Formats: sequence, structure tokens, C-alpha cells
Amino acid sequence: MVCAVGWFAKPTHPNTANIVSSKYLREFLDEMQPDQIREHLRKFTRLPHLAGTEQNLKYAEQIMKEWQEFGLDSVEMVPYDVLLSYPNKSQPNYIAIVDQLGDEVFNTSLAEPVPEGYEDISNIVPPYSAFSAQGQPEGDLVYVNYGRTEDFFQLEREMGINVTGKIVIVRYGRIFRGNKVKNAILAGAKGIIMFSDPADYWAAGVQPYPDGWNLPGGGAQRGNVLNLNGAGDPLTPGYPAKEYSYRFSLEDGVGLPKIPVHPIGFHDAVHLLKNMGGQIPPNNWKGGLNISYRIGPGFTDDFKSQKVRMNIHTNNQVTRIYNVIGRIRGALEPDRYVILGGHRDAWVFGGIDPMSGAAVVHETVRSAGRLLSKGWRPRRTIIFASWDAEEFGLLGSTEWAEDNAKLLQERAVAYINADSAIEGMYTLRVDCTPSLHTLVYDLTKQVSRFIHMQSNNICEFDRSKKHFLGSGSDFEAYFIRLGIAAGRARYTKNKKTERYSSYPVYHSVYETFEIVEKFYDPTFRRLQAVAQVRGGLIFLLADSQLLPLDANQYADSLRKYAQSIMQLAQRHPEEMETYEVSFDSLFSAVENFTVAARDFHVRLQTLNRVRVMNDQLMYLERAFIDPLGLPGRPFYRHVIFAPSSHNKYAGESFPGIYDALFDIENSADPEKAWEEVKRQISIAAFTIHAAAMTLIPPA
Amino acid sequence: MVCAVGWFAKPTHPNTANIVSSKYLREFLDEMQPDQIREHLRKFTRLPHLAGTEQNLKYAEQIMKEWQEFGLDSVEMVPYDVLLSYPNKSQPNYIAIVDQLGDEVFNTSLAEPVPEGYEDISNIVPPYSAFSAQGQPEGDLVYVNYGRTEDFFQLEREMGINVTGKIVIVRYGRIFRGNKVKNAILAGAKGIIMFSDPADYWAAGVQPYPDGWNLPGGGAQRGNVLNLNGAGDPLTPGYPAKEYSYRFSLEDGVGLPKIPVHPIGFHDAVHLLKNMGGQIPPNNWKGGLNISYRIGPGFTDDFKSQKVRMNIHTNNQVTRIYNVIGRIRGALEPDRYVILGGHRDAWVFGGIDPMSGAAVVHETVRSAGRLLSKGWRPRRTIIFASWDAEEFGLLGSTEWAEDNAKLLQERAVAYINADSAIEGMYTLRVDCTPSLHTLVYDLTKQVSRFIHMQSNNICEFDRSKKHFLGSGSDFEAYFIRLGIAAGRARYTKNKKTERYSSYPVYHSVYETFEIVEKFYDPTFRRLQAVAQVRGGLIFLLADSQLLPLDANQYADSLRKYAQSIMQLAQRHPEEMETYEVSFDSLFSAVENFTVAARDFHVRLQTLNRVRVMNDQLMYLERAFIDPLGLPGRPFYRHVIFAPSSHNKYAGESFPGIYDALFDIENSADPEKAWEEVKRQISIAAFTIHAAAMTLIPPA
Repeated sequence: MVCAVGWFAKPTHPNTANIVSSKYLREFLDEMQPDQIREHLRKFTRLPHLAGTEQNLKYAEQIMKEWQEFGLDSVEMVPYDVLLSYPNKSQPNYIAIVDQLGDEVFNTSLAEPVPEGYEDISNIVPPYSAFSAQGQPEGDLVYVNYGRTEDFFQLEREMGINVTGKIVIVRYGRIFRGNKVKNAILAGAKGIIMFSDPADYWAAGVQPYPDGWNLPGGGAQRGNVLNLNGAGDPLTPGYPAKEYSYRFSLEDGVGLPKIPVHPIGFHDAVHLLKNMGGQIPPNNWKGGLNISYRIGPGFTDDFKSQKVRMNIHTNNQVTRIYNVIGRIRGALEPDRYVILGGHRDAWVFGGIDPMSGAAVVHETVRSAGRLLSKGWRPRRTIIFASWDAEEFGLLGSTEWAEDNAKLLQERAVAYINADSAIEGMYTLRVDCTPSLHTLVYDLTKQVSRFIHMQSNNICEFDRSKKHFLGSGSDFEAYFIRLGIAAGRARYTKNKKTERYSSYPVYHSVYETFEIVEKFYDPTFRRLQAVAQVRGGLIFLLADSQLLPLDANQYADSLRKYAQSIMQLAQRHPEEMETYEVSFDSLFSAVENFTVAARDFHVRLQTLNRVRVMNDQLMYLERAFIDPLGLPGRPFYRHVIFAPSSHNKYAGESFPGIYDALFDIENSADPEKAWEEVKRQISIAAFTIHAAAMTLIPPA
Repeated sequence: MVCAVGWFAKPTHPNTANIVSSKYLREFLDEMQPDQIREHLRKFTRLPHLAGTEQNLKYAEQIMKEWQEFGLDSVEMVPYDVLLSYPNKSQPNYIAIVDQLGDEVFNTSLAEPVPEGYEDISNIVPPYSAFSAQGQPEGDLVYVNYGRTEDFFQLEREMGINVTGKIVIVRYGRIFRGNKVKNAILAGAKGIIMFSDPADYWAAGVQPYPDGWNLPGGGAQRGNVLNLNGAGDPLTPGYPAKEYSYRFSLEDGVGLPKIPVHPIGFHDAVHLLKNMGGQIPPNNWKGGLNISYRIGPGFTDDFKSQKVRMNIHTNNQVTRIYNVIGRIRGALEPDRYVILGGHRDAWVFGGIDPMSGAAVVHETVRSAGRLLSKGWRPRRTIIFASWDAEEFGLLGSTEWAEDNAKLLQERAVAYINADSAIEGMYTLRVDCTPSLHTLVYDLTKQVSRFIHMQSNNICEFDRSKKHFLGSGSDFEAYFIRLGIAAGRARYTKNKKTERYSSYPVYHSVYETFEIVEKFYDPTFRRLQAVAQVRGGLIFLLADSQLLPLDANQYADSLRKYAQSIMQLAQRHPEEMETYEVSFDSLFSAVENFTVAARDFHVRLQTLNRVRVMNDQLMYLERAFIDPLGLPGRPFYRHVIFAPSSHNKYAGESFPGIYDALFDIENSADPEKAWEEVKRQISIAAFTIHAAAMTLIPPA
């Protein structure tokens, strides 16, 4: 038994190339069945289960009970009291066109048409922007394309339009909606309307739901409009939202917008947009509606006296949420954690988001339970999490990360995320930290041999490509705040040919069980493949004697990122010379890291201190964390990966340098702006040197 | 060999009560000899060795060479380029009294009278305030006692005197000089003079040096006047000051005072103070000089036309400094570090500060080398450090901590500090984190049996008392920023009967080898005892199978601190009711921690996962670190221990709550101030709960 711990044992798996040789892994993956996944999905999508509602607690209790029955060592319910946001039931939200007398001559719809079979369901929350400010601003509309930073710049600088005191209307897509709202606020707007344009939420040749998987004109995208930057609960940034926690007032809360915000579908959008006056915009501002997409401000002469009024009565309220946490105790290293977590809360039924992912987690737990009953026990502890309130800003996962930060920092080996398991029908896609590249590659390549795939095209995982995690799901606090190696896997569309954002019915009432069963995965084999990949990752991370993490892959990636960020800076060759901006220190740090990584993996073949070297591998990701955080974003602490400040969804490498370069364009003081670029290069170089030091022999 | 690692071995030393049974420990301590320490001290105090000077590099090289000869596994020189500050050699600093024509009618001395035997020594830096702003402000003096926050409040509120545009003169003592400077700046002064008053730097019945160890009237205290709050090098806060590091401009540097500052002795002070006019202050503002200590502003009517002019030409300059780092590789846990560090740089000769400590470290290294040659090798890695530029803001130790933060965070078991080993003749005093209480108690009690003591009174270590570390020496970054269990040991005065601050000749030219040899420790047995205690701590931390850290002692201490901080709040019973301030959550967290600690130590007797439980002990101190830092002090991150914001030297428990309570008195918005108290209580309660979680079984 002593030698099995491996402190002095020679590692038996220097890499994961022979992973399929594990009998238990094979059994674990074979046990995961399409029918079972189908059943889990069916069970957990019958009723709406918005975070903070009774139904979502009921599902939590059911998951807890079933995980116990599946045979986990322990399952617990972990509550937090966080700020959520709901429409006011007695005063619905809507947008109106008002005439000169102030009478409402057009109102947007109060709800989406309910899909067949769900007519009797109550508690379907209408489309709304969670955490919108309350208010009834009235004014002229200005159309600002996607509401991106560059769209507002173009509006102000090229089109000469100032939106101060106006209501902006933007189409959904391209960037996180919270960034659109932030941009509108910065530009001085007093309200913002977001609509789903067919150009962005409509796949060619596909029927709207229920005849296909496109978004009907009456459908609209719910979603929170916070700018949390990883803070979790807006009232308890940095600390878990427990009974005794100090809560900021709403005025001091993090990321809450100060203006009303509301989402609409394209049927309603046409009414607001069709009579708009002002300039005709460039073609890339035009969507798929049969209108001219004029920019405003306001309507054409014929409708000049009409204004737009937003009626928003959404309430913020501190509400109890529930994570379900299950564990399998590690046999040999109970103080090393491998986590599989995904959220349970849904805007309505959550057919895709998140229950396609939750069903997969459920099946993984069931299969792991079966394996336990056969005598297997993983080397390390496995933690399964059903997070709550992801839709309200990744709250459940972030609060738990805050609650357990010390333990996770010292003990967590990896975090695998399990949000929506299917968003398209083209390929299995994995995004992950570079040190997981090799494991993912080996797993998807080898496991596919005996995964029951309907297509050979299980996963196009190319280690030489970028696999940025970005943000927008529950891995955020684990990866970007705490520096735990992280990855996610899901079935997705073909990004090159399918241009719509996310998937058409995203966050609408049309995300039902049936849309998965009829269109996305009738055989449930795609979801099975996702289960096997997520499960395989967890299994190998928890059970391999030597951690399947690859520092060489990090070195390769760092070099590529350094190249790209330098090229971005080199768009300004003169300034780089004037301000003496050099990337030499960054490349020198990358070289140093590359040598340290190479030597480390050479030693790994011959040395025998497995726990010491596993710790070096585990802590490698942690080495990229800067406790000071990125500028202005104290909870984004990963120096190599973080979302862009301009789009939460988009992961950037070297985010500090990237943001500093972005600001160059808009700074009144270019010298100061370039100084910040230099400072960020220095921080990146230092961090990579420090990470390299973690790989050399410890003493 | 496998079992020796102890992963599954039953611990053989559940506590350290039987520590003297170790043959190697005994040999290690017996090897440390007074004559050797005397010789080390003699050798390293012949010449001035200010940080950044050639002589201090020479001493570094000599230490490196000797540590290699003593037999360490490796010794390296680690340079950093940090901001230092020196007087301008061609334009000396001094204070003048000027008459109405602007002529200087009195000038303070440009140097201290050099002690006998050192007349031919060059490079004795005259007394100055390092990092003073340059300038020649001229104005009326105001005397503000010790320059503490409460002194300035009393001056402004009770005496009605505003110091805007005045030059303040304060006596040294009670608080860190940098805090005096900060207070003067906040009050609007345009310069500050600090003097050593006999009341504070003169022991009764003792002759001035060289006939005794009191401060001569011509002596003055050098010292830096920064307010770094743990930032290290002012130009590279948070990151090591290496070649490629980004440096802030001097304007943006951390903690640099914006006004001229200068220190003088009491002979000079009499001239500035004797003719001052204005009110006669309360008795506790009066020092030991034969003058009335009037407050001013300015001189009496007879001298009304006279002003005071400061002439300060001190330069800041980025300068290379050198740490010497030596290692003994751990036999079984090379990735666990025990550190013994102390500084080498001195204001002049450093007879007491720091070479009495450096000589002790040198002897510890020599003795460890002897033990290695006999076949001993510690279980864990031991790191010995000779820090540079401590006198300029703990720069060498902080830069190295920044450089190695990731490694230290994951691997450091404990840091033992080795500044001045003797500051008085009364007793051996140990200050340390509560988890070291038991080790210190057992060691001092048992080791004293065979330590060759000249008195039985080796150490009055009472575990029930406070042993706060505060700040002002090199443990700061390790303990307060990184959360590494830390302690320090030194011979000191009797605090109850000896009222002078630090020791009389502190930071003067009179800190010679001879003052130690003639007065402080003629037999060098006190220094030997310090060597044996510091060495014993390092030995037991590095070589005990089970880490000699005691979570129960932390629990006891937390309870005491919670009681005290609550009592401080309870001075405001009405406000506590009005603003609903409760300490219940804090006490509940302490209870939770107490139970977890008790259970942990019970399990320690029976369980067999030594490495897992050792990690829990090692990371316990880390659990008190909040990456967000204390309010306004991002590099002070320890929630339980940090210096008061009003005196860097004084350690406070629950510093966040303490500072918030301090601010109650001065807040224009008491509701807001009490909200901050509540927030800090919540953070403390959370942190203690989180620390308790680290002690429960890991899975």
C-alpha cells in the first residue's frame, strides 16, 4: 500500500497514450448510455426551474437523492443568499411607442408564445434583462449595431451622433450582453433595448421551432446584464454570501447597471426600427430584417412626434440558492481534488442550457457509482457540483469557490466544466488550458475507438490551435480567479459555416426537451460522447498516478500568444520606437519557461518523487495567478488568460497587455498609455519566469 | 526508506516535549560557541556597510564564501535593483536657525562625533532620513510630542494649532518614524525634524557611550521615513526589482514622503527648542531636556524674527543590492522549506543592528555544516538568507519574497527572523505566530537544561500572553503578505522597568562591536542562547516528522483577540446598538475553529497520513491570508495580524476591525464608519471559518 502512493515509486504512466488500457476507464465509459441521458434530460426539463424558485430547489433535492442512490460517498446541499433579479409580476416589463399625447400606440409583447404541450405550465418567466435598473425612460432611439466598443466609437466619431439622453437599441450577438449595456451607459444612454436579429439567430434553411430549431419571431433572449468581472454575488464580492456575510447596499453592489435594459424578439423589433430616421448605416450594421436599419436619433419626419418609452419594473432581491456537492473520497490522495461542475438553474426549461450538460453530469455520476460498487476507488477525490444561479452571474459556482478558496488553492488538480453539452450538431469541441492539451488529444483520439460514435468526427482537437476558455460559464472563478487547470467539452456547430451567435433559441422558452430530442441529438449519442469525454477527463485526472498535465504544451502556447500580442503592438511601429516598447523580456521569459518545462518532463521519466512532481504540475496553473488582479478587475487574476474587457465571452491571451494596447487608440495621453503597455509586458514576463521556477527541482 | 517519508507511518513525535532526545539536535546546539559568535561579529563590524555600498557587497561575498566552506549544498548571490536614498556628499543636510536677514545663526551638526578607534574610517554616512524629499523649507517650528495620530489630534483640537505651512519637530519613540512623517504631511506641515530626547533614549544610571551604552548628545538616529505598508521597493510594488521589471516614476513610487525630513540629536535639539514660544504643553509632552517644551508656532517674542530652515539634499537612486541565499536540501521533503533569514546591511557598523543577529545566523550555518559532515541531513529543505537593504524598507527580503512568492506559498513551512540578536540584557524574548507557541515553549523550557546559560532566566515565554510580531523587520513579507508561520527571538530589555525606546544607540554610529563586547554581552553567552533558540526552531521545523505547529494555540489566541477587539468596540455601547454591530459571528467562527483544531490534534494521534496532515498544518497560516489585502494596504494580507495603520512597529490582532474602530472617532459619517466595522467583522469571521475548514479531514 505504501508504494502505491507513489512517493518513491517509478511512474507507470509517463503520459496518457496508453490510457485505454485501463479496464476501469473502459467500464466507466461503457456504462454511460444514451437512453439514460435521455431519461435524465426528460426528468429535469419538465418544469421551469429558474434560480431561486421552489422548482429549482426541488430539482436540487432530487439530484441530491439520486446521487446518494448512485453511491457517492457524500452529497450535500450548500445554500447561499445572493442577489437575484425578477420581473415584477403585477407590473410587466415592455417597450412602448408613445404619441405626442403620451399615449402608448404600440407595446412589445409581454411574453413569448408558449410551445405546444407547455400551455398549462405556470412560472415561465417572460423575457427580461436580469438586474436591469427600474425606470420608465422616454426618448429617441439610436441604433448602434451590436453595441460593441467599436460600434459606439464609429457612431460617435464617424457618424457624429451623441447618445446622451437617448435610448439605444442594439442587436444581440458577437459580445456578451453585459458589455453592450456597459458601453451604452458609458456613452450616456438612458436606456438600452436588445433584440435578436434573424441575421444573428437564424440558420439558413431551418424552420422556426417547433418545426425546426430556429428562433421564432416572438422569441427573445433572457439574460443578466451585469458587469461582474468575476466578483460573484454583487453584494458580497470576494466573500461567500452566507448568513453572517456583510452585504453592500444596492448602490455599492458590483456591476449593477444604472439604466433600464430590455430584450425583445425580431417581430417586436421591426415595429421599433422600421420608422427610424437618420443616416443609413454601412452594410455591416444591417441585419436580416426587411428594413433600412437607419440610425436615428428618433423616427422619420412622419413619426417625429413619437417617442419610445421603456417600462421596466424588475426587482433585485436577495434570494437563497442551492448548490449540490457530491464527493468520491480519494483512496490515496484524498487531499487532491478533481472537480466536475455544471449549473442546474435555467431561464425556463433549460432543454439545452444547462440541462443537456446536467444530464451528462448525472450520467457520469451514475456510472462512477457503478464503478465504486465494483470495488474501484479513484486515487484522488472527485467532486461533482450542480451549481445554482449561473444565469445570474455564475453565482453558485463563484460563491462556492469563494467559500472554499483556500482548500481549492492548495488541493485542486483540475476543474472540468459542464454547461450545455450540445449547442450544434457538427463536432465535439474542447476548450481548455494548454497543460490539458495532451490529455484531451490522447483521450479524444484513443477513446473514440470505443466510444459509440455516430460519426468518426468526434473531435477536431488540434493542439496547435487556440482553445481559450474565455468566460460566461462556471469555470470562471476556478480558472481565472484561482488558477486551477480547467477545461470544457461540448458538441457544437461549425463556426466557419454557421454564423449565428450561440444557437438560435438560446435563453428562450423554446429550449425544451423536444428541441434536443427532435433536432439536436435524436439518438442521444452526441450527448453520450460528451459524457464520455467529460467523464474520461475526470477519470484520468483523478486516477492516473502521474498527473496527465503537460507543461511543454503550456510553453508552446505561451510562445504563440507572445507572438500574437507582439504583432498586435507592432501595428504601431513608430510609437513602439518612441516609447521604447520591447517584447524581448517576454520572449526571454518564454524561453526560460520552455527550457524548464522540457527539463521537467525529462526528469519525469526518470525521477521517482511522484507526489513532489505531481504537486509541481498541479501548481503550474496557479503560478499564473497574480493576487493583485488585472487592472480594475481584482477577481480576474490569471495573467495569461482572461476575458477581454470589451467582451466577457472572448478569452484573450495576455489580457493585461491586450487591454493596454486596446486603450492606446483612445488615450488622451499616449505616453502614459504606452507606459501601461510596458508595465503589463513586465508583469507577464515576471509571471512566466515565476512559473518556470515552479518547474525546476524544488531544492 | 519509504516509511520514513511518513505518508502512512504513525507519527513518532506527536508533540515536541521529548525534543531533547534527538542526538543531532543536541550536537547542533552544542556546536554553537560564544567565541565563534564573537569572531563573526568582530569580522563583520569593522567597516560601515550601508546597503548599496561596495563594502556591503564585500561582506556578502565573504558570507557566501564562508557558507560554502561551512558545507551548505548551495549558496547564491541574488541581486535586485531597488530605490535607495543617500545624502548628497557635496551638499550636506542640516537644520539652521536663520535671522531676519536670512543668515544662518545656528546650524545643526553635520555628523556624529566618531567613537575612539574609528577615527580613520571613511564612508560613515551622517545621520539622515532616508527617502526624505529634497528642499529648503523655512518657517516656524511647532512641537508635536511624538508625532502620533493622537498628538496631532490633541494639537489641533485641544490646543487649536494648525501646522499648515509650518515645520514640525517631534521626538523619536513610541511609533515608527515613517508614521510620524505621514502624520505631519497629513496635517499640512512643510518639513519635519525628529530628535532623540533623553527621556526616550537614555537609561537611568548609565553613562553615554563609550563609558556606557547610552546615546551621547551628539548621536542621532538614522532611518527610512517611508510608508510602504509592505510594498518592498517603492518603484516595483508587488513584483521583484529585476533588470526587466517595470519601474514607476518617483512621483508614482509607493510611500515616498513629499516633504523634507531630518533627524538630530538632543544637543542640537536644545538649540531649536529652547527659545520656542506658545503654550506650555501637558506633562506627557515634556521630555528629559531642561527646557519648557513650548509648542510654538515659532520662537518667543525675543527671537520672533528668527525662523528655522531645513537644508535637505538627499538623493533617491536605483541601486543594486545583494541577498545571499544558502540551502541545505531536504532528504525526504525537498519541496518543504524552513527559512532562517536576517539582514546584513547596517546604517554604519551595525554592531547591534543587524550584525549581532547576522553573527548568530553565521554560527547556525557553521554548526549545521558540521552536522552535515557527520552524516545528518534534515527531512526538509533549510534556506538561510542574508538580506540586503532592510534599513531602506525591508527591501532585500521583500523583493526575494516577491520573486519566489509562488514557491513560498506552496512550500514554505516557517520563516524565522534574525535581526539584532540583542537589544537589552534582561531576557530572551520570542515573538511568533500562535501555532509556534508550543514549539517555542517546549524548546526554551527543555533546551535551557543544556544551553549554557549565565542566568536561569533564559526565556519568559508564557503561551497565554500576546507575542505579536508587528512589523519593522524582514519577516514582514513572509508573515503578513504570504501567510507563512513566522517567529523571531532576541535578547531584550525589561519592558516594565526600562522605558526607553528600542535601545539608546539605535541606528547611531555608536552601534559598534565594542558596545556588545563591553556592555551587552561580554561573555557572548546571550548571543549563544539566541543562536540556540533560533537554531533549535529551524532544526525542529525542518527535521521533525510531524510538523511542530499547534492549531489549538491558534484557537486559544483567536478567542483572546476576539475578546479584546470586542471590548474595544464596546467603548461605544450606544452606537453598537444603533448600528446593530454584533460580534456573534466572530465568536461563532472562533468556536468552529476551536472544535476543528481540537479534532485535528486528536486525529493526529491516531491517523497515519503524515504528509496530508503536515500540509494541513503548513497551510493553516496561509488560510488567514486575504488576497484582497487590508483596506488601502494591498500588501498587508493577513486578516489576524498586521501592524496598526498608526504605528508600523505595533502588531495588532484583527487589524481590519481595529483600524475601522480607530476611524470611528474621526469619521464625519458615523453610520458609514460603523458599516465598515461590520464589514471587517464579517471578513474576520469568514476567514476563521475558512481556516477551520482547512483542518477538517480533506475528503
